[in-house]
Amino acid sequence: MSAAPADTLKIGKLVVIGVGLIGGSFSLALKQANAVERVVGVGRTQKNLDAAVRLGVIHEASRDAASAVRDADLVLIGTPVGQMPEVMAQIAPALGARTVITDGGSTKQDVIAYARRFLGEHFERFVPAHPIAGTEKSGADAAFAELFRDRNVILAPQTETKASAVTLVRSAWEACGARIVCLDARRHDEIFAAVSHLPHVIAFSLMSMLAKRSDAETLLGHSGAGLRDTVRIAGSSPEMWRDICLANREALTELLDDYMEELEIARSAILNGDAAALSEMFERARDARSRWLLKKPA
Amino acid sequence: MSAAPADTLKIGKLVVIGVGLIGGSFSLALKQANAVERVVGVGRTQKNLDAAVRLGVIHEASRDAASAVRDADLVLIGTPVGQMPEVMAQIAPALGARTVITDGGSTKQDVIAYARRFLGEHFERFVPAHPIAGTEKSGADAAFAELFRDRNVILAPQTETKASAVTLVRSAWEACGARIVCLDARRHDEIFAAVSHLPHVIAFSLMSMLAKRSDAETLLGHSGAGLRDTVRIAGSSPEMWRDICLANREALTELLDDYMEELEIARSAILNGDAAALSEMFERARDARSRWLLKKPA
Repeated sequence: MSAAPADTLKIGKLVVIGVGLIGGSFSLALKQANAVERVVGVGRTQKNLDAAVRLGVIHEASRDAASAVRDADLVLIGTPVGQMPEVMAQIAPALGARTVITDGGSTKQDVIAYARRFLGEHFERFVPAHPIAGTEKSGADAAFAELFRDRNVILAPQTETKASAVTLVRSAWEACGARIVCLDARRHDEIFAAVSHLPHVIAFSLMSMLAKRSDAETLLGHSGAGLRDTVRIAGSSPEMWRDICLANREALTELLDDYMEELEIARSAILNGDAAALSEMFERARDARSRWLLKKPA
Repeated sequence: MSAAPADTLKIGKLVVIGVGLIGGSFSLALKQANAVERVVGVGRTQKNLDAAVRLGVIHEASRDAASAVRDADLVLIGTPVGQMPEVMAQIAPALGARTVITDGGSTKQDVIAYARRFLGEHFERFVPAHPIAGTEKSGADAAFAELFRDRNVILAPQTETKASAVTLVRSAWEACGARIVCLDARRHDEIFAAVSHLPHVIAFSLMSMLAKRSDAETLLGHSGAGLRDTVRIAGSSPEMWRDICLANREALTELLDDYMEELEIARSAILNGDAAALSEMFERARDARSRWLLKKPA
């Protein structure tokens, strides 16, 4: 089964631990592709699990990850990365010798380190993955089958990782409509610190700073589409993003330093009335954005 | 004419100086509402003016603001705010005794100071205005008649401003489908420093910093919808935003300081692994955004 191409992929039992936007959409996409027989969802809150069953996101729900993963063909850990060590430690003793494990975490070096430590002998069937898709919404009711269509999924297999495990995970994501890209884990973390984690810190910080003001309500009442788009991702799960920021602290703080330096250049130019310096910065930004969007239509 | 309600408003001759997104859309909206007979567009580049005529944004084009404004009923100065002193000085000697003048500038204290200085006796017929609408696009070909529908237009009339002039400008914006809100000019500049000018500096700075990196193309190739939305407004006109930032430097640098302080709190929390501090900030941001969007649907 694990070597089957995407169009004939059939996963017998899929276990999704953390039935949120990513885990729920993975399940829905595989069900829609007729690539899975049975999906068991594991979660912390009964309310979310009940919603997931009611909405047809999963077939059945469980609060016990260890018993759920028994005889699974594939396990997706879709929790915030901060919970992954505990989840891995819980499921490791119950994992079968054929079960393939993957994750949906936004950082890879830390998740790989956890897996190496907590999955033990099963590490060779763990395929580190990061689907580049998401919205600012969370929970099972935010899930939808098309989330991964034409999106990249990064895989960061290790030297120990079995080819058959990579093939299964690749086939599953391809059945969801995604494209597979392989990246070194360290490079992955640097890249996503820049294009995802930093923008989230920027958006959360702006919204937090405005919220602290006594006139926040008046200010926001006057805002337009510009602010709305700039802070859209500040609607994302605080827990998930706290974990990501802490997991990727090295790359992220380095980029935050670069960003604050750039803001300081803007601030000085504004304060000193340096029109040329401001023009240079704004034009560089505008031109880079145009070139990027030409290559990568929205 | 000037006291007529929006549904019977008829402006004989409208002159739009700066036929870009704002000026062009104002013209199109008034034409669509059948509230104007003739629109003369004034601009710096023949190419944009030719496009404006070809696209039906204006009836005729002129490169000479002074001769264009003769016998106008209403003049909208839709240029970047940095050009307004020169435009005002040019048109002042040619303005008739009934002509009402307004603007579309994103800052109000500086525009009012320019108008007071350069419009002379015509200052009593100058109505400072700021339509809260826009996209990241610029130029006549970006203009569309619906831009101002259900949007706020801020008016900041001064003690000298004639009521009849305010009534005409109000009626014109209402004919474009906009709502009128009156604000003190200083308060206006504070509010928009927070909800518009600061987000633009944030977006331009992020895009500029990424563009400076030697691996910018690789980074951007991996980006998703999060970065795309966060930097959408970095596609805005560099010249326009340079002028706005310099015009509103006092309020803006104060807010930039607050923002950089907030980023520093985030940076310290990440560096020190302070999960509680990060959670507090991200939750404050997420909650404030939710409350705001509940009141103000997108």
